[in-house]
Amino acid sequence: MNAPLEKTGKIMLVGLGPGSSEHLTARARAAIAEADTVIGYVTYLRLVADLVKGKEIIRKSMTEELDRAIEALERARQGRKVALISSGDVGVYGMAGPTFEVLFQSGWTPDSEIEVEIVPGASALNTCAALVGAPLTHDFCAISLSDLLTPWPTIARRLDAVAYADFVVALYNPKSGRRTRQIVEAQRLFLRHRHPQTPVAIVKSGYRPKQSIELTTLARMNECDIGMLSTVLIGNSRTFIRHGLMVTPRGYANKYAVEAGESITRDGEQAGRSLSTGLEGWMASIQASGKSAAELAVEYRLPEDYIATVLATGEPAEGG
Amino acid sequence: MNAPLEKTGKIMLVGLGPGSSEHLTARARAAIAEADTVIGYVTYLRLVADLVKGKEIIRKSMTEELDRAIEALERARQGRKVALISSGDVGVYGMAGPTFEVLFQSGWTPDSEIEVEIVPGASALNTCAALVGAPLTHDFCAISLSDLLTPWPTIARRLDAVAYADFVVALYNPKSGRRTRQIVEAQRLFLRHRHPQTPVAIVKSGYRPKQSIELTTLARMNECDIGMLSTVLIGNSRTFIRHGLMVTPRGYANKYAVEAGESITRDGEQAGRSLSTGLEGWMASIQASGKSAAELAVEYRLPEDYIATVLATGEPAEGG
Repeated sequence: MNAPLEKTGKIMLVGLGPGSSEHLTARARAAIAEADTVIGYVTYLRLVADLVKGKEIIRKSMTEELDRAIEALERARQGRKVALISSGDVGVYGMAGPTFEVLFQSGWTPDSEIEVEIVPGASALNTCAALVGAPLTHDFCAISLSDLLTPWPTIARRLDAVAYADFVVALYNPKSGRRTRQIVEAQRLFLRHRHPQTPVAIVKSGYRPKQSIELTTLARMNECDIGMLSTVLIGNSRTFIRHGLMVTPRGYANKYAVEAGESITRDGEQAGRSLSTGLEGWMASIQASGKSAAELAVEYRLPEDYIATVLATGEPAEGG
Repeated sequence: MNAPLEKTGKIMLVGLGPGSSEHLTARARAAIAEADTVIGYVTYLRLVADLVKGKEIIRKSMTEELDRAIEALERARQGRKVALISSGDVGVYGMAGPTFEVLFQSGWTPDSEIEVEIVPGASALNTCAALVGAPLTHDFCAISLSDLLTPWPTIARRLDAVAYADFVVALYNPKSGRRTRQIVEAQRLFLRHRHPQTPVAIVKSGYRPKQSIELTTLARMNECDIGMLSTVLIGNSRTFIRHGLMVTPRGYANKYAVEAGESITRDGEQAGRSLSTGLEGWMASIQASGKSAAELAVEYRLPEDYIATVLATGEPAEGG
C-alpha cells in the first residue's frame, strides 16, 4: 500500500448551530478562521459576516447543493482550505451528504491529498427544543416534507409509521412558497393516530433576530405561520404544555413519585433497574400468560412472528 | 396580573456537545463560568474540569436525575446560579425533562423568581454522524433501548415501525452491564425489514481521548463492543459504506446525475421543483390510475383510508 499523500487542500463542513455567534462551537469558529474560501447559502453567510471578512466568499442559492460541493472540491484541488457552512448541523439534511457524493464521483479517497473535516453543531430540532421547554426527553424523529428528492409515498409511509408508534416528530422543510400542501397531508396522517389536542411547537429563526415561537395543537397547526425557516415539533401522546413550556415526560411508566422534595420509587419497581414491564419482565409475563402469539400480537400491537420468536426463545438467562 | 418577580436564582441546563472543549459553544462555556454551583454526572464534570475550579461541585450518579434537579432547585431558591451539565444536548433524553417535572411539582412558573435557561448542544447522533461520514442526510430517529422507564412493548413497537419505514436510526443507551438483551432484540426486529448487510456504525466517546469507531453490518453488530457510552447508528436501505465512510444519499430518486464536473437534471424532473412522484404528481397519478383505494394501498404500502381520502380530495389547486 502506498503512503497517504501529503494533504494540500482541505474541505471543512461546518455546522453553525442556531446561527447566533454565541451558539457557535470553538471548532466551528476556528474552522472558518482557517479557511481561505467560505461557501454557503446567503442567509448563513450573513450569520457569520464578521468572521469571513477578507476571505473569498462564494454565495449559493438553496438548490445548488451539488454546485457548492463541486466548487469546494475545485478550490481544495488548488490547495486551498474551504469552509462549506450551513446553519444547524451540516450532517442533518446538510451539505455533508452531497459533498461525499461529489468527492466519491471524482475518485477522492480519505488517503488522497484533500482532507475532509466535519464540524458538528446543534441541529434545528435541538434548537427548537431548547427554546420551547423539554419536548425531546423521549424518542423522536426528523422527517423532511420536501418532495424534491423523495417520492411522496415514502414520506407518507414514514409519517404514518411514527405517528402510530408515538414518536415526537420534528418536521424539516415543512412548507415553501410552492410546497404548501405537504404539511396539510402530514397533519391528516397524524390525526389518524394522535389526539387533535396534541401539542405542537413551531419555531422560526431560533436565536436569531427574527425568532418566533408558536405553541399550538395538531388540530390548529395549519392556521400558524409556517415557512422555509420553520421547524414544526409534534409531541407524543404524553407531551403537555404548561406555563407556555412544551414538555415530554421521560418514560411511559410513573416509576418515581416526586413528593415532599424527594423522589420515591413506586411499588414493584427498583431504582436503576429495568421496569417490571421491561424486556425481561415482559418476556416472563407473556411466557407465563398461556396466550397464543396471535392473541399477544393484538394485545401488544407487535408482529405475531416476533412474539412467536420471543415465546420460543425460552426464559432469559439472567434477571433484568 | 402581577408583575414578574425579580429573578434571584437561576438554573442553566447546559449541553456540552461531544465533550471536548473545542466542541463547546461559547454560550455553554459562559454559562458554566457564570454558575456558582455545577451539578452533573462524574464523567461530564471531568470533561469540563478546567472550567469548574473554585465552584461548588455536586457529583451525581447516572440514575439520580430527579435528585440532581431537586438539588438545583434548592440552590436556586437560595439565590444561587446553578449549571446542570450533561454531554450531548441536555434536551435529548437529558436533564431538561426531569428538571421541569421537579420545577412544576414545586409550583414554579416562568414568572417566578427563578430563571431557567437551556443551552443546546450537538447530541450524540450529531457527533457520531460527523465522525463516520454523512449518515443523517435523510430522515432519522432516535430510540433509547433503556427499559428503566419505558415498557419493552413500546420500545419494540417503535423499532418495528421505523425499521419498516426505512429510517436511519440512532440507538441511545443500547446496552449496559445489566441490560444486554435489548440490543439483541433490536437487531432481531430490524432484520425482519432490513438487509443483513445494512451498514451500522458504533461510536463510543466521540471526540474524547478514548474515542472508538466501528463500522459493521446489521448482521454482525452484536459481535462489536457496545456499552453505556456507545451510540449505534443503523443505516437505511440506501446507506452505503465506501472508503471507511458511512453515507446516506439525499433522496430516493436519482434526480441529478453528477457528471463531468457538473450536475444535470434527469428527464422529466426540474431543478428546485417537486419530483414527478412528489405529492402533486403522485396525487394526479393515482387519481388517473382508475385503481381502487384498496389496490393503491397495497401498491404504495399506505393505509387504505388515507388513500381513499386523497382520491376524494380531487385535483390539487396548483402545480407542484
